[in-house]
Amino acid sequence: MSSKIEKIQHHLQAANIDAAFITTPENVFYLSGFLSDPHERLLGILIFKDAAPFMICPKMEVPDAKAAGWTYDVVGHDDQEDAFEVLANKAAQSVSAIQTLAIEKSHLTVERLDTLQRFYPNSSVVGIDQVLTDLRIVKSADEVEKIREAAKLADYAIQVGCDELAEGKTELEVLSAIEAAILQKGYYMSFDTMVLTGLNAASPHGTPGNTKIKKGDLVLFDLGVVYEGYCSDITRTVAFGEPNVEQKAVYDAVLSANKAAIDLVKPGVRTMDLDRAARQKIEDAGFGEYFTHRLGHGLGIGLHEIPSIHGSNELPLVEGMVFTIEPGVYKGDTAGVRIEDDVVVTKDGVEILTSFPKELHIVEPK
Amino acid sequence: MSSKIEKIQHHLQAANIDAAFITTPENVFYLSGFLSDPHERLLGILIFKDAAPFMICPKMEVPDAKAAGWTYDVVGHDDQEDAFEVLANKAAQSVSAIQTLAIEKSHLTVERLDTLQRFYPNSSVVGIDQVLTDLRIVKSADEVEKIREAAKLADYAIQVGCDELAEGKTELEVLSAIEAAILQKGYYMSFDTMVLTGLNAASPHGTPGNTKIKKGDLVLFDLGVVYEGYCSDITRTVAFGEPNVEQKAVYDAVLSANKAAIDLVKPGVRTMDLDRAARQKIEDAGFGEYFTHRLGHGLGIGLHEIPSIHGSNELPLVEGMVFTIEPGVYKGDTAGVRIEDDVVVTKDGVEILTSFPKELHIVEPK
Repeated sequence: MSSKIEKIQHHLQAANIDAAFITTPENVFYLSGFLSDPHERLLGILIFKDAAPFMICPKMEVPDAKAAGWTYDVVGHDDQEDAFEVLANKAAQSVSAIQTLAIEKSHLTVERLDTLQRFYPNSSVVGIDQVLTDLRIVKSADEVEKIREAAKLADYAIQVGCDELAEGKTELEVLSAIEAAILQKGYYMSFDTMVLTGLNAASPHGTPGNTKIKKGDLVLFDLGVVYEGYCSDITRTVAFGEPNVEQKAVYDAVLSANKAAIDLVKPGVRTMDLDRAARQKIEDAGFGEYFTHRLGHGLGIGLHEIPSIHGSNELPLVEGMVFTIEPGVYKGDTAGVRIEDDVVVTKDGVEILTSFPKELHIVEPK
Repeated sequence: MSSKIEKIQHHLQAANIDAAFITTPENVFYLSGFLSDPHERLLGILIFKDAAPFMICPKMEVPDAKAAGWTYDVVGHDDQEDAFEVLANKAAQSVSAIQTLAIEKSHLTVERLDTLQRFYPNSSVVGIDQVLTDLRIVKSADEVEKIREAAKLADYAIQVGCDELAEGKTELEVLSAIEAAILQKGYYMSFDTMVLTGLNAASPHGTPGNTKIKKGDLVLFDLGVVYEGYCSDITRTVAFGEPNVEQKAVYDAVLSANKAAIDLVKPGVRTMDLDRAARQKIEDAGFGEYFTHRLGHGLGIGLHEIPSIHGSNELPLVEGMVFTIEPGVYKGDTAGVRIEDDVVVTKDGVEILTSFPKELHIVEPK
């Protein structure tokens, strides 16, 4: 029995819950090693208090689930079957009744719960989300190693982006060169790459387009790579040609915010204190109103995990947590700058997983 | 008042529902023109029976929502606020109470419904999904035009893929050339491109890797492009060098299945009849057991919409429906072949939106 499944079973036994239905693809991967995007089809693991678990997935993926290392039963369903009936029939082989059912309330839709309850009409429903979240928030050494590799690939991608910069090239040309370089190494991006030049970067969620890079621009790269199911997420802002005084002032403020937050990271510190320290630096520089988002987010199998690093989260840091630190200033008439690192909380401090230099990097136009 | 919002209001009035909360990003786009992936943040449109609707979105996206053409109120929330409290406070400006609330049951999570019900503890909850689905299943001429453009881009991407084929190139090298070509035109893929060569293609959900293309392979491309928010989805299987008799037999069976289904398309025909006609052709050729998925799926803002084209869906086709027809045979020791077109039901027949040739295309090794 895998130790992760065992931990969930211990919870079910302690809380007297008959079964837990785990349906987020990320948690299915976490528990089984099987990474799949089932689209609208049903994928899940049913874990019983006192019996072996099983997985349900689209029929065509059954061999893949087994090949990924899932050693318990797998039951497949095809598009013409009622997947929940397949699930209930299989469950009936293990247990005579389900009185209390745990679900992932933050993932299962109201419709799917309605459907499940057709088969367990008198059951009471509770959430299992927190149990999985608590399991996942602290990464094992093996998981950190995967994020470390993903971060190295992200560093490489930033270097590719810098090498591609040239007067008159478009954001999309640079972007596609980055994505092609990662694909050719055999990896996927963890989200759509952002390359934003000049004042386009002053929108925190801008979209890359056909704007051409020109001398004097700050160019913002935000990207990440997936390594064996684990994500990295990095942002660097570089200068194409000599920056002006105003651009430098924004950059310096963001860099000092990034460093101030990272310097605080160690077990026991509250996450909110990181956000506040970074925000204070940016406010001191006079740009407070232009830092319009939280400081960062947890990172792992998911691109956005807990802990959420914002100014009212009192959660103390624990060894093994991995998250981003990404202060930004978006001043529409001057510049958009964000500097994002991935960090892991160590026994007595911090390890920074992303290592592309952070001092303002100037790419000289040829 | 936009006509789409009006139609939903008419439904609310007829069914005596006080408000509907629309939360799928696709439906928010459909109703507002604002396309956004809010990740775990709250995005939605609250439509009242008798008052003007409003949108709630992350604060930093408020300007984007307005720029996209949403003319009603937008209320933003930041990461440190309870987004549902922001929603309820704004709603209270329009209505004194919500007795009956409609939600998208196939999208809203159990957790979010629990949270909503904190603010409307005595309300009854009903589903609005079918109303949106019914609205969206039939595409307007404007929507078909966007899918037509997306399909042209998909045709182009297949051509790029064919041009890239060469002895010893890897699947990922060909794939990245395709994606780079689309990105450089300023468009995004609608899903991760698949390039599978030789027997790799015999898994209907295989993953492109470092397998090299060699003479005698069938190479399967499955890809799509997004044009102004609308998706295409095409599959072509081409031969790299002269195919053998067994490969040709599989190809011919799949092609005849594709054509048989398309030939049937017109208003009034049941979707199941398309699946059955295609499946019959493949069974007649002796490959029935290797066609392991449904025939196709609806297509539009979403990559997988209704109607689902499978053997027990009695829904009759209606003018303006857009869907894929994608029979496949995955015979592990011989070949994997899928041929997928995007089609629209016209007044008296069918228009095929994807136009890359379907007769077995042989790319000659240089």
